[in-house]
Amino acid sequence: MEIKLQELKNRLMEVNDLEAVGALLNWDQSTYMPSGGAAARGRQMGTLAQLSHEKATNPEIGRLLDALRPYEESLPYESDDASLIRVARRQYELATKVPPAFMAQLQTHMAESYDIWTRARPADDFKMVQPALEKTLDLSRQLAGYFPGYEHIADPLIDYADYGMKASTVRAVFNELRDNLAPIVQEITAQAPVDDSCLHQFFPEDKQLAFGLDVIKRFGYDFDRGRQDKTHHPFMTKFSLGDVRITTRVQEHDLGEAIFSTMHESGHAMYEMGINRAYEGTPLANGTSSGVHESQSRTWENLVGRSRGFWQFFYPKLQAAFPEQLGSASFETFYRAINKVQRSLIRTDADEVTYNLHPIIRFNLELELLDGSLEVRNLPEVWRERYTAAIGITPPDDKDGVLQDVHWYGGLIGGAFQGYTLGNILGAQFFDTALSAHPEIPQQIAAGEFDTLHNWLKENIYQYGSKFTADELVRRVTGGPLDIKPYIAYLKRKYGELYKLS
Amino acid sequence: MEIKLQELKNRLMEVNDLEAVGALLNWDQSTYMPSGGAAARGRQMGTLAQLSHEKATNPEIGRLLDALRPYEESLPYESDDASLIRVARRQYELATKVPPAFMAQLQTHMAESYDIWTRARPADDFKMVQPALEKTLDLSRQLAGYFPGYEHIADPLIDYADYGMKASTVRAVFNELRDNLAPIVQEITAQAPVDDSCLHQFFPEDKQLAFGLDVIKRFGYDFDRGRQDKTHHPFMTKFSLGDVRITTRVQEHDLGEAIFSTMHESGHAMYEMGINRAYEGTPLANGTSSGVHESQSRTWENLVGRSRGFWQFFYPKLQAAFPEQLGSASFETFYRAINKVQRSLIRTDADEVTYNLHPIIRFNLELELLDGSLEVRNLPEVWRERYTAAIGITPPDDKDGVLQDVHWYGGLIGGAFQGYTLGNILGAQFFDTALSAHPEIPQQIAAGEFDTLHNWLKENIYQYGSKFTADELVRRVTGGPLDIKPYIAYLKRKYGELYKLS
Repeated sequence: MEIKLQELKNRLMEVNDLEAVGALLNWDQSTYMPSGGAAARGRQMGTLAQLSHEKATNPEIGRLLDALRPYEESLPYESDDASLIRVARRQYELATKVPPAFMAQLQTHMAESYDIWTRARPADDFKMVQPALEKTLDLSRQLAGYFPGYEHIADPLIDYADYGMKASTVRAVFNELRDNLAPIVQEITAQAPVDDSCLHQFFPEDKQLAFGLDVIKRFGYDFDRGRQDKTHHPFMTKFSLGDVRITTRVQEHDLGEAIFSTMHESGHAMYEMGINRAYEGTPLANGTSSGVHESQSRTWENLVGRSRGFWQFFYPKLQAAFPEQLGSASFETFYRAINKVQRSLIRTDADEVTYNLHPIIRFNLELELLDGSLEVRNLPEVWRERYTAAIGITPPDDKDGVLQDVHWYGGLIGGAFQGYTLGNILGAQFFDTALSAHPEIPQQIAAGEFDTLHNWLKENIYQYGSKFTADELVRRVTGGPLDIKPYIAYLKRKYGELYKLS
Repeated sequence: MEIKLQELKNRLMEVNDLEAVGALLNWDQSTYMPSGGAAARGRQMGTLAQLSHEKATNPEIGRLLDALRPYEESLPYESDDASLIRVARRQYELATKVPPAFMAQLQTHMAESYDIWTRARPADDFKMVQPALEKTLDLSRQLAGYFPGYEHIADPLIDYADYGMKASTVRAVFNELRDNLAPIVQEITAQAPVDDSCLHQFFPEDKQLAFGLDVIKRFGYDFDRGRQDKTHHPFMTKFSLGDVRITTRVQEHDLGEAIFSTMHESGHAMYEMGINRAYEGTPLANGTSSGVHESQSRTWENLVGRSRGFWQFFYPKLQAAFPEQLGSASFETFYRAINKVQRSLIRTDADEVTYNLHPIIRFNLELELLDGSLEVRNLPEVWRERYTAAIGITPPDDKDGVLQDVHWYGGLIGGAFQGYTLGNILGAQFFDTALSAHPEIPQQIAAGEFDTLHNWLKENIYQYGSKFTADELVRRVTGGPLDIKPYIAYLKRKYGELYKLS
């Protein structure tokens, strides 16, 4: 058995390495690649993707997994070996159910669709992407079709990003959340808008970057195992457990952009960095779901990084870095500015209170597109209606409306948005549990110390990688299932104080 | 035939892409990779090297090459298709003559030997690397043994880097060169040393980098198809004909380091950038030999970059960039400083006149090691003797003696050094021919214009990639074979004026 397990590990390691190399190609493309490299880079990424798919679906892996089943069943569910075999089997089944010819077709379409979107969005031209988006919808349905037995056609797509979740469960949770958020949003936005002009002065890039790096160093982001570079869109990427990088972007007239994106990506990165090093190169060496991943980025960005205590420690440092700009802005002015709630058009710019309304709109639209109750050609109009109804603001164009997010135009519809909101919910649940175990955490944060929190997260979440599903993890950690109550309580507590809510 | 040719091209493109990806892994390791990424990176590079070797030696390539022979023979030698098939066959034969098990053993040994050297050199401890070097010699002989029919055992190794060259020819050329250089070196070093202290002040890194980038932009290095980053050792690397990058290093107390390494690497890069874009992804899309490659780096670094005319244009700009440091240094003082000739220990720091003595010593030692007339354990002593005899200076230690260059400690002895000196010779031959065709080139250089020279090089050398061997190319371009006379004449002209030689 040990020989077979080792053989399985070797094969999985090869797949893992080819995927990691693909990630490096992507990182380089987003950071340093000169424009002349684009054509060959696309080709090289395709070559690698095909090779790793071939290796990942090699029938020998299936035979090894079959042969290892008795061994797996002889072990406790939580043992590393049983978990590795279990997760490897799940991924092998996922990968082998989709015919290679379809995958190739999908990948070609993804590149083409993305390329069209990069031109359609600046031109504010939905018609330009409509045919590609219709094809995306077709292909997404076909993909779902390879996983028969679903309740809603979106289920296999949701399952891929957030294993174990399905449309009906998520929809119920999201409806409950939306109903809870609506009155809060209503009450806040009835008030006079907060003045956040202190954030919109000129803040030189180098000082913004230095400040952000100092913050995440204190969080515990390990610069011997990572680095930060600049990109157009911030992301986290991993080449091994020893090399987990983040990227950021800086707006010299918006102090929030770089600092909060840096904290956000550092949360994703610390999750990956915290995975048991013994899992290196195995399918266990990844965060377990998009929702749990987002819970960690949101924890460090919002629960920590937009908290009163955090800024009690860091605001004097920020003022020292930008004395001319912030010297005369009081703590309270700054704290209210970074937590300003407003109805807005763009998901990625939204505040904590209104944020989830954006993914919820998209999630529901995905379900309707996939089940055929909404046609692509009607999408821009329905988008405007939903924004008007749910957020109280009507997009003046498609550029900042239905064309704003890359996800659908990347060639796949379904499963891309629920993770954001699941992450906010899960993050609050985990954080609540951490505070129960260590009530001293808030004081520590206010003293610029993050070890207790970071260690608790490593101990309870990070180290396990993909060993537990999101559902198993939340039950293990909090003692119960996914639950919006801690998140709603958090928002009411924080924003109740800020906006003196009833 | 067209289908078979396309199939061959597809297979070669895949090999090319995997090799390019390997080059990116190496570039990242040398530029930005955090230290924690090293272990996995080594593994990933190994995985890719093995995959590309498997693909490059797939018997289907051999069958396609056989099937395409009649087509190749029906075409003119110089046609793109015939050349592609010819060069692909040469590479296939090279790759398939070496058993995969041996290649794997060699690659493991290379990594180990390099790792030992990185510790042995700072410790000045030749004994530490001696066993690895003995194994290197064994493996190098074994590698040569896979190519029977050679005259000297070094021939297959020389042939690999400089196709068509062999020990006897190179030795004869080098002896002639050495005999010509000796009296020049003798006469110059008998004079009082030139004062180059103007180069050894404090020159801030950012200004040095900006100056170097400005120079190579004027040369015609295309920043839409390349970029420069910092590394410990400068190099050029290529991910496609649209992405040819260089690296440099800066010494803030040595103005020469960055600027001349930047010009040197830009020469390598412009060669690759100048290759016919239609060759992308084929074996023709590479410089044809290490000698021809070095001829181009040396052309831009020395024949252009250390010339009087070049600095007539650029020295005022350099003074403007560094007014405090160079404001009072006259043009003549600076020009003599950057062309200072002296007996020295380190190859990479040597001036144009003494430089070739360094590779010639190494080339002869390689032949003796390989044919058994020199034992590894005696190498340090013999190194010191040769330096004393040929350069007139005795290394005080092995650190700056036999341990100075990575090449032998990278796991292979033979074929690594002749290219440097062949490059200097070829560079002067090509440059001479360019000047005959365009006598206005020197005046243009003195006006900061490089288009005529660059275009001539593209037209006569760069565009062809590997279509012609070095020997074919030099005959095509200059009308005759490799010849040291233009190089000797160049040195006598330039240094005769500088040092008022007899």
